[in-house]
Amino acid sequence: MASVLITGSSRGLGLAFVQELASRPASSIAKIFASARGDSPVLDKLSKEFPDRVIPVQLDVTNQASIKKAASEVETKLEGKGLDVLINNAAVCYYSPGLVETMEKLEESFLVNVMGVHWVTREFLSLLQKGTLKRVANITSTFGSITEARFSAAALCPAYKVSKSAVNSLTVQYAIDHEKEGFSFIALCPGWIKTKLGGGDHADLTPEQAAKASLEIVFTEGQVYNGKLPIVFVEGFEKPREGSWLVYDGRICEW
Amino acid sequence: MASVLITGSSRGLGLAFVQELASRPASSIAKIFASARGDSPVLDKLSKEFPDRVIPVQLDVTNQASIKKAASEVETKLEGKGLDVLINNAAVCYYSPGLVETMEKLEESFLVNVMGVHWVTREFLSLLQKGTLKRVANITSTFGSITEARFSAAALCPAYKVSKSAVNSLTVQYAIDHEKEGFSFIALCPGWIKTKLGGGDHADLTPEQAAKASLEIVFTEGQVYNGKLPIVFVEGFEKPREGSWLVYDGRICEW
Repeated sequence: MASVLITGSSRGLGLAFVQELASRPASSIAKIFASARGDSPVLDKLSKEFPDRVIPVQLDVTNQASIKKAASEVETKLEGKGLDVLINNAAVCYYSPGLVETMEKLEESFLVNVMGVHWVTREFLSLLQKGTLKRVANITSTFGSITEARFSAAALCPAYKVSKSAVNSLTVQYAIDHEKEGFSFIALCPGWIKTKLGGGDHADLTPEQAAKASLEIVFTEGQVYNGKLPIVFVEGFEKPREGSWLVYDGRICEW
Repeated sequence: MASVLITGSSRGLGLAFVQELASRPASSIAKIFASARGDSPVLDKLSKEFPDRVIPVQLDVTNQASIKKAASEVETKLEGKGLDVLINNAAVCYYSPGLVETMEKLEESFLVNVMGVHWVTREFLSLLQKGTLKRVANITSTFGSITEARFSAAALCPAYKVSKSAVNSLTVQYAIDHEKEGFSFIALCPGWIKTKLGGGDHADLTPEQAAKASLEIVFTEGQVYNGKLPIVFVEGFEKPREGSWLVYDGRICEW
């Protein structure tokens, strides 16, 4: 009977999380708080299809007042229960026209990809502390791994990479501070996905594949992923293959 | 006949860099651009003591117009020559009253410790490309190492740690993009220093010790430190000892 909140859920991976969770029995997934910055016809449609289970919530991760309002709404809907899982999924990815010195969007990337995660997490923390699962998945990327930076040098999105390194570091700060309460704060790499952020159809995974594989990690029992950077496991993508250099073998990536 | 620019040089480690470099022969260190946000009597005094060698420069790393103006001044003073070494030293360190969710100064820490480094570096890059040494040292900390996060958990400065992880990542982006030109972009940990930022007298190293040991790394021949996080080597501090858990053994720290 888990409750889950997902940010940035009006499209891409976030929407796939909502759809995948909604397709599971209500006895397993009780409430899905599908948050997005603006109105979302697709989430409204899903909320009619799954009444009382898919609950659209207006939440702009860059606006602390909006986050407070959303947390208050979610608290009311939970009727005294806690929130079990928070998936910090909302993010931006900007490309630079040349070498790193041409990077213009680092501040905005920090705001959405790091400050947003910090502000949302701390606002929902008391509800999560009342929850039974105590999982927070920060959707990140191996592009944020400094150790693997040479491996991803061909992708010209330095602002994304640096902001993801920062959110990885933030994740570990939360992981260390709250592990004694039973929390798992996970820096989760969902793979390269055929979404607007991922750059479309030449990516590796469908949003559905990535969402399913990510949820495997999120719902793994115990605290094995707390303070770690797991990469999803997807069958058929465990080894390097023609056309893509990325491998989804479920390993823990180095920072 | 090297020229060096140091940011945040009106006190602490930055000032120690200026003093140490000024004490070396003019045949080795030709010009020291000692930049600081505001007026600095101590730098003015040094510029009188070492005329034409210690050159105070007004530079606020959070203000792009100020950086541009400083770069133009430095270019004029270099009279057609390049800048050999840039030491991005200016930084802030804020402590949080409790666990990571009480952190309030992350945005400001990003602004000074990461955006500042990006803006200064790209503004001075063309002068550095004309230089002979091509060294950029970003002063960071092992507190920014995510791998070593549990080791530094007792220090309640999460905003500092996360911002230093980000600047480590930024350093590697520059290191990869410019290594073919002969650059070394170094994420340099100068140790825990008896400065205002470091928290005063109970720290390990004097600013003079840290500056000397850091310059050993900066002036090491070749590109051995490019895209790496070296910790200073200081005699007497190579091993764990009573009263301090930090070791200055010249090792390369993991990210």
